[in-house]
Amino acid sequence: MIIVMQAGAAEAQLAHVVARVEGLGLKPHVIVGTERTVVAVVGDERGAASGGLETLPGVASVMPILAPYKVASREVQPEPTVVRAGSLVVGGGTVGVIAGPCSVESRDQIVATAAAVKAAGATGLRGGAFKPRTSPYSFQGMKERGLELLAEARAETGLAIVTEVVSPEDVPLVARYADVLQIGARNMQNYRLLEAVGRTQVAVLLKRGPAATVEELLLAAEYILDGGNRQVMLCERGIRTFETHTRFTLPLATVPWLHARTHLPVVVDPSHGTGHSPLVESMAAAAVAAGADGLIVEVHPDPKCAASDGGQTLDFAAFSRMMTVCRKVAEAVGRRL
Amino acid sequence: MIIVMQAGAAEAQLAHVVARVEGLGLKPHVIVGTERTVVAVVGDERGAASGGLETLPGVASVMPILAPYKVASREVQPEPTVVRAGSLVVGGGTVGVIAGPCSVESRDQIVATAAAVKAAGATGLRGGAFKPRTSPYSFQGMKERGLELLAEARAETGLAIVTEVVSPEDVPLVARYADVLQIGARNMQNYRLLEAVGRTQVAVLLKRGPAATVEELLLAAEYILDGGNRQVMLCERGIRTFETHTRFTLPLATVPWLHARTHLPVVVDPSHGTGHSPLVESMAAAAVAAGADGLIVEVHPDPKCAASDGGQTLDFAAFSRMMTVCRKVAEAVGRRL
Amino acid sequence: MIIVMQAGAAEAQLAHVVARVEGLGLKPHVIVGTERTVVAVVGDERGAASGGLETLPGVASVMPILAPYKVASREVQPEPTVVRAGSLVVGGGTVGVIAGPCSVESRDQIVATAAAVKAAGATGLRGGAFKPRTSPYSFQGMKERGLELLAEARAETGLAIVTEVVSPEDVPLVARYADVLQIGARNMQNYRLLEAVGRTQVAVLLKRGPAATVEELLLAAEYILDGGNRQVMLCERGIRTFETHTRFTLPLATVPWLHARTHLPVVVDPSHGTGHSPLVESMAAAAVAAGADGLIVEVHPDPKCAASDGGQTLDFAAFSRMMTVCRKVAEAVGRRL
Amino acid sequence: MIIVMQAGAAEAQLAHVVARVEGLGLKPHVIVGTERTVVAVVGDERGAASGGLETLPGVASVMPILAPYKVASREVQPEPTVVRAGSLVVGGGTVGVIAGPCSVESRDQIVATAAAVKAAGATGLRGGAFKPRTSPYSFQGMKERGLELLAEARAETGLAIVTEVVSPEDVPLVARYADVLQIGARNMQNYRLLEAVGRTQVAVLLKRGPAATVEELLLAAEYILDGGNRQVMLCERGIRTFETHTRFTLPLATVPWLHARTHLPVVVDPSHGTGHSPLVESMAAAAVAAGADGLIVEVHPDPKCAASDGGQTLDFAAFSRMMTVCRKVAEAVGRRL
Repeated sequence: MIIVMQAGAAEAQLAHVVARVEGLGLKPHVIVGTERTVVAVVGDERGAASGGLETLPGVASVMPILAPYKVASREVQPEPTVVRAGSLVVGGGTVGVIAGPCSVESRDQIVATAAAVKAAGATGLRGGAFKPRTSPYSFQGMKERGLELLAEARAETGLAIVTEVVSPEDVPLVARYADVLQIGARNMQNYRLLEAVGRTQVAVLLKRGPAATVEELLLAAEYILDGGNRQVMLCERGIRTFETHTRFTLPLATVPWLHARTHLPVVVDPSHGTGHSPLVESMAAAAVAAGADGLIVEVHPDPKCAASDGGQTLDFAAFSRMMTVCRKVAEAVGRRL
Repeated sequence: MIIVMQAGAAEAQLAHVVARVEGLGLKPHVIVGTERTVVAVVGDERGAASGGLETLPGVASVMPILAPYKVASREVQPEPTVVRAGSLVVGGGTVGVIAGPCSVESRDQIVATAAAVKAAGATGLRGGAFKPRTSPYSFQGMKERGLELLAEARAETGLAIVTEVVSPEDVPLVARYADVLQIGARNMQNYRLLEAVGRTQVAVLLKRGPAATVEELLLAAEYILDGGNRQVMLCERGIRTFETHTRFTLPLATVPWLHARTHLPVVVDPSHGTGHSPLVESMAAAAVAAGADGLIVEVHPDPKCAASDGGQTLDFAAFSRMMTVCRKVAEAVGRRL
Repeated sequence: MIIVMQAGAAEAQLAHVVARVEGLGLKPHVIVGTERTVVAVVGDERGAASGGLETLPGVASVMPILAPYKVASREVQPEPTVVRAGSLVVGGGTVGVIAGPCSVESRDQIVATAAAVKAAGATGLRGGAFKPRTSPYSFQGMKERGLELLAEARAETGLAIVTEVVSPEDVPLVARYADVLQIGARNMQNYRLLEAVGRTQVAVLLKRGPAATVEELLLAAEYILDGGNRQVMLCERGIRTFETHTRFTLPLATVPWLHARTHLPVVVDPSHGTGHSPLVESMAAAAVAAGADGLIVEVHPDPKCAASDGGQTLDFAAFSRMMTVCRKVAEAVGRRL
Repeated sequence: MIIVMQAGAAEAQLAHVVARVEGLGLKPHVIVGTERTVVAVVGDERGAASGGLETLPGVASVMPILAPYKVASREVQPEPTVVRAGSLVVGGGTVGVIAGPCSVESRDQIVATAAAVKAAGATGLRGGAFKPRTSPYSFQGMKERGLELLAEARAETGLAIVTEVVSPEDVPLVARYADVLQIGARNMQNYRLLEAVGRTQVAVLLKRGPAATVEELLLAAEYILDGGNRQVMLCERGIRTFETHTRFTLPLATVPWLHARTHLPVVVDPSHGTGHSPLVESMAAAAVAAGADGLIVEVHPDPKCAASDGGQTLDFAAFSRMMTVCRKVAEAVGRRL
């Protein structure tokens, strides 16, 4: 880390900083500049209580040098991770497409959707059985019955099941049915839940929280990887900004930025990322062009009757059109979908 | 709700919207404007799948009229809720001050801090035993041993204990020790946890998530209230914006806005809200001037050695100065602290 | 507009609102709901001082119905505007690519760049002569000499010149040299400047301000259109959010959203939108996939020696690779580049 | 500045960086760490094209050390600047209050308002004659006639006049009437305008742009100071965030942060900062408690009839109440108002 001293900091203050850095087992290098003195610190700073250093008298600021994540880093594993979960392959040049309703509502709904999205080229089926909802007065999901219906849809179509788990105590139950455990955006920093899925060997789709930095997303992944589960996909689904014409703002530059720093594959969610079905096809195509390794898209037989998220959900025909466009764009950038 | 039709929407599209509103058990009023037609919908819209309505052909947008929260609303309970938990009173003209370290680290540390903050006028003691940390490589808290030390500090000083609970299965344990259960910002939308604390009769301090709107904060409170626990304090601790010179941006207009809409008391956290100890006193005073019912402030015997959050933590002398200023400001705005 | 009354508003308050709406020449429709009364107002609300209505006793909020822009709207002109300025065509299925250095630095630099970007397929040449810089200590541009060098580059290559104008009094001078006048993001709401370019017949590239909503962007365009100049391109170049790993956050959903509401073409700037050259190619491809009508990209013979913005600038080889990818993506989505 | 090399950067890449730093006239210090090598650069980095350095092969990132502003810095002038403009004093323990309508509308309106705000304790009169408006269809101000009316109000009350100037060519005209030239938020980075007011000796109130960082605000002030005008007040008026319940988010931590870094006084605008009159009093009191050197507040004889910004404007009685509270809070924090 780099410790910047205040202009006019006293010699004794500098000596105190140097002593404290040495006390942490790190090695200080003092550089006297024309206006400021800085202390460059050599050693693994991740464990150091750097917060404390910035409160020392005479210190102006402390800047970390090392990225705080390790196992997720490309420096540790240069070759990209490819996630394989049943029919679903994400990464390594293959764009995996996960599609399905926000919530599982009935056997007919989920089986019909599975058949339609498979026909259009999807390789995973999404569907929420445990629903985290902003309001306690909204539909909360079918729970285990929903998981059973997902399993029936898988039996009929062969599609891998992607479904959300919202609490550590549900992990064993959901893991019995799911091919991929989804961690929702609201739970990206629910560390007990991250630890619980990290102890399974089921693939995980980890969604970025709407106020999380990309470094925080990687640190959340680190909780899962650190537990021994290496089958982790990161998911960009939009951040909260001042924009109100979309539900969230979908920052696709996340995709190439992450690819340069982590070996984990990156999935994009154009449904939550925009919140409006007329914008989904364009943003799905843009995500593929930006290099996304996967898409997760909300599809329902009759969006206007959906129990949740109808406004951002495609019907079967719109999803099929979206897939046609995305397939061409994938080819244009040297990938297959 | 108000349904705005597109310019040039067909009669059949309007008829379809009207029929669908009636099908939801609500009453439509069609108003033909010079450029647009709108449908004003009468009835309790909170349960309606309004997301679906916006996907109907010819619909431009759907605007809700009713606030989505109920029990938290001043329309339901006009008089303010006063939270009383042991020595701590928050609301009704009394500004309650909760102070203490980010993390409980040792018996000496927590007992000394409790004595010092009590001497300066604090009525509650904060201290984390279960710590949610962004990185898996950071200190994760003393867990139950930390709770025991908090209880010892209470035995010595009489201060009410405010401490965080991070998982539903820990609620019974933490509730045995705590006077106030804190829900951290990362868990504001951890609905299982909200439900679990809602089933206790222990007071709750609910922190706003850094990307949560104030309406989402009230809906999170609604989960707790709906479970039967009415002793809920809301806590503004800053939101994530483009500003980097502070850790978060602390929007104090939240305080009077919430006071106009909810009976629940509002606590402000100037430590997380700024992230830098030199800014804490000014923002604590500003929060009291804005009408805050309480403050929660990080204090440590030796901030530069704190296991976490040292950069935003006051030492005993700085906390004492802060209290002197805040007491005068409270009097200036007709409150006591 | 819709006026929402407070729960429990008095009859006299409602009567006052109704009278005032009528006094504005608009027609009120009162709808009594189960919890709230609303007044739906029919007529052209754009001129009304609606800000005043929300201060009337008993009024909870006022919601506009009509979009505030007119001439830029697709409802006024359904067919898309195609901007043609010398060699540059933007819109109507053609993706126009404008490329060149942040600042004009020398004859060699600008002529060599023009030749290289033309060879790679660009149809417009960008280059700043008048530079708005955050710091007064940064390079401020070559001014008129820069314009002359741009004209020389056009004489040699035939490329249309796109260059920024920063002050109303400079408009006649810059308009003598430029094929397209660029309004920079910092000046999006410099209304005198918008009016000045609106009085010319030179095409305009209007950049979105980093805190501007898309409605504010359209209203800024309205100032230019209202002056009689219909050759306006909108440019998405990123907004300011909490993200720091990119210079700005580039929200590509702006492209399809604008296409649905305005006939004006939409250009994307992946250089400012990301701030880092390794991210530019991916985001340029994503912009084309999202339906952008144009790109504006920073290119320099030797980015590490550029007088400004070197970190986000491509060299000739990188630009050429970017064009190859973008051309394939354009074909994949049915456009030509 | 600190140049961080990529893990595994080659020796030749490091040598190239070192050579280039030396070529810029700066002195490099190479520090080899356990995982990374960094180059600490000594010398005045403000003029260096640091953007170029980050494009060199092997460079991971470049971090500036020195603040980019100079004349505004407390390191250059430790004692606080006190702005004196006629009746108005801002800074040095005196809280100056500027009040008046958004727009000058008539002689009666401005003279009556001046008398009322003076009676309540204001020492400056605001009123817009040249109005920058988001929509070309909104009221654009009375222009020079408005300035004449402001001068009449000053003649009757003695209050200093604070009014906005929107274009460089208007500066001489507005400066003939105004005691303080206001630079609006939309023009914070209109450098020609900053240079023009910097050439006058009239005091300036510089408003923060809604997406501007505090460093950018200081750099904008630097343009004015650099021109020779030292009578500059900074004004925090709110930033754009995801919050929609207020017009902007008002981050009061700006006040103590700026006080630690600049000698310029800081004024707060609770009217634009909240956008809703019921929130103004609380936020004005909070601003004073946070240490603000001044307030600027919108006041109108009849806000519901105001030509602009009615929703955030106080009437005379509400302003008088606000002043009573703010006076007490000022005393509580050791200031006078």
